[in-house]
Amino acid sequence: MRATFMYKPGDVRVEDVPDPRLIEPTDAILRVTRACICGSDLWPYASMEPSETGRSMGHEAIGIVDDVGAEVRTVKRGDLVVMPFAFSDGTCAFCHEGLHTACVHGGFFDGLEPNAAQAEALRIPYADGTLFALPVGEDDALMPSLLTLSDVLGTGHHAAVVAEAGPGKIAAVVGDGAVGLCGVIAAKRLGAEQIILLGRHPDRIALAREFGATDVVSERGEEAVERVRELTGGFGAHSVLECVGHGQAMETAIGIARPGGAVGRVGVPQEETMPASEPAFYANVRVGGGPAPARAYIEELLPDILEGRIEPGKVLDRAVDLDGVPDGYRAMADRESIKVMIKP
Amino acid sequence: MRATFMYKPGDVRVEDVPDPRLIEPTDAILRVTRACICGSDLWPYASMEPSETGRSMGHEAIGIVDDVGAEVRTVKRGDLVVMPFAFSDGTCAFCHEGLHTACVHGGFFDGLEPNAAQAEALRIPYADGTLFALPVGEDDALMPSLLTLSDVLGTGHHAAVVAEAGPGKIAAVVGDGAVGLCGVIAAKRLGAEQIILLGRHPDRIALAREFGATDVVSERGEEAVERVRELTGGFGAHSVLECVGHGQAMETAIGIARPGGAVGRVGVPQEETMPASEPAFYANVRVGGGPAPARAYIEELLPDILEGRIEPGKVLDRAVDLDGVPDGYRAMADRESIKVMIKP
Repeated sequence: MRATFMYKPGDVRVEDVPDPRLIEPTDAILRVTRACICGSDLWPYASMEPSETGRSMGHEAIGIVDDVGAEVRTVKRGDLVVMPFAFSDGTCAFCHEGLHTACVHGGFFDGLEPNAAQAEALRIPYADGTLFALPVGEDDALMPSLLTLSDVLGTGHHAAVVAEAGPGKIAAVVGDGAVGLCGVIAAKRLGAEQIILLGRHPDRIALAREFGATDVVSERGEEAVERVRELTGGFGAHSVLECVGHGQAMETAIGIARPGGAVGRVGVPQEETMPASEPAFYANVRVGGGPAPARAYIEELLPDILEGRIEPGKVLDRAVDLDGVPDGYRAMADRESIKVMIKP
Repeated sequence: MRATFMYKPGDVRVEDVPDPRLIEPTDAILRVTRACICGSDLWPYASMEPSETGRSMGHEAIGIVDDVGAEVRTVKRGDLVVMPFAFSDGTCAFCHEGLHTACVHGGFFDGLEPNAAQAEALRIPYADGTLFALPVGEDDALMPSLLTLSDVLGTGHHAAVVAEAGPGKIAAVVGDGAVGLCGVIAAKRLGAEQIILLGRHPDRIALAREFGATDVVSERGEEAVERVRELTGGFGAHSVLECVGHGQAMETAIGIARPGGAVGRVGVPQEETMPASEPAFYANVRVGGGPAPARAYIEELLPDILEGRIEPGKVLDRAVDLDGVPDGYRAMADRESIKVMIKP
């Protein structure tokens, strides 16, 4: 079968690999029916250290369970399931607390041996704790939206939860990528009254408005901070969703937070430090976030997709087969596409 | 009358100044009966830029209201009041939200013209919003504990609140100064089950144990992180109170937080940045805090002092008159004293 590997910046290859097989009795084999390219895949695409063996790519998928180990109890052959971007045992203290991305036996699919999810199939560790069965058929029209449960919708929701978005509050979303756009959906879903998108791409801005953004700020740096203050009576946003990850985005996020406000950051940090003093400390701004426990959020978010209240699948604006994956990376890096869906 | 000024590191002088007078109709004049030297005063004492005119010092006081402006309504001449370390109008959105240190008309007493609180008297802006009347006499035996309401108890409580200390949780307190010790009181008061003090001074450790610390870690840096992990089943503390302010203390605070835990920082940051990536992001640790809204917390904390459930005044282990203030700074800088009370 075929799977995707990255060797150096800009060098993505789809290669023949052996079929995945069960190793642990808690494993399952997933035949992938849909996968994605993620905004976070663009970080190594821009700057990874060259690798002789290649890095296995892909951490978002929906698929059919093809086989299960002897100890798998809740997932069975033939189930259509969503695979969150991290695997988790479902039984440890952190899984019980809903922080599956801190699972003591958990890990991430990216870089997994021998292959990850941009592939025809892959091995799923801790299938019971990781996979979530979907009550639809494999070609259901809701498939793009359901696929966002594996990462971008849960990640945008996590940013909104950590930023404490809620009724009567002003939310600001830094970044107009797929996660930022899902952050807009999440902030609106949690009741935010005003939702300011910080972004610059007309197509994404249009989608953000459709998702519930009330204002758009396309300036950057100090000018963006000024503009958000103007839009918020001078004080900033109660809830800031940082959905980019680089240093300037983080500075902006803290700068536009209202005193006493909260920043939920889900963009993978590209810098080792963030502002500690002005304005974060003196304004009592809380900064939290990290890898979203997407698995924990599926139960809450799924009904809104099934019943048509939200359509996060609109962020998937291009579909490719496995042959099209390298060009899918290019299209996302060139901002031709917001997010690419893969039909292996 | 006399007031305290700092001119350069190690150079604290008590000087004759004109009596304070009402300027705004919302002002009061406070005759100081008790003041303090604060751990935060030791930062300029160690490293301030030399000043020709001197910097007025002192932001913690209890005193008698000597005069009030025409618009002061709730505070009257003769009241014994506690003065929190920040003044606030009591009417703006932030004061209503309980974040008095973000008051739109507020400010800090340190550096106030013509003098601050290590003095015989001072002018209090926004007297109604700032001062809190105490139901005791000016020489009540509870005076040291009541004096901590002006800063260190409220600040330790703020760290515990932001760190989300509560029943069934493990709290860790970084720093054994007066604020850290009050943080121990606050964590216990909020129900924390295990309270780990990170400190090195035997007298302070003894007081921390009396206040409710269950464990003490005297190692630093990576060793401290290891030791806290050993004491917490390998995972760290749910609630970390950062009561120091320098970079290593902040790194340790983040390092000892449990995944999904919270750091409440109240030590004035001495560095411009803090760790953004490992471990804060990947462990979903929330970092919050800043100048405590001490004014907001008095109502909640006062009954526990009046009814003898907590004795934060024990951190005041030395008393001086105004002449003794320069030596009080020295004693605190030399770690001879935890915190010095001033009786002008």
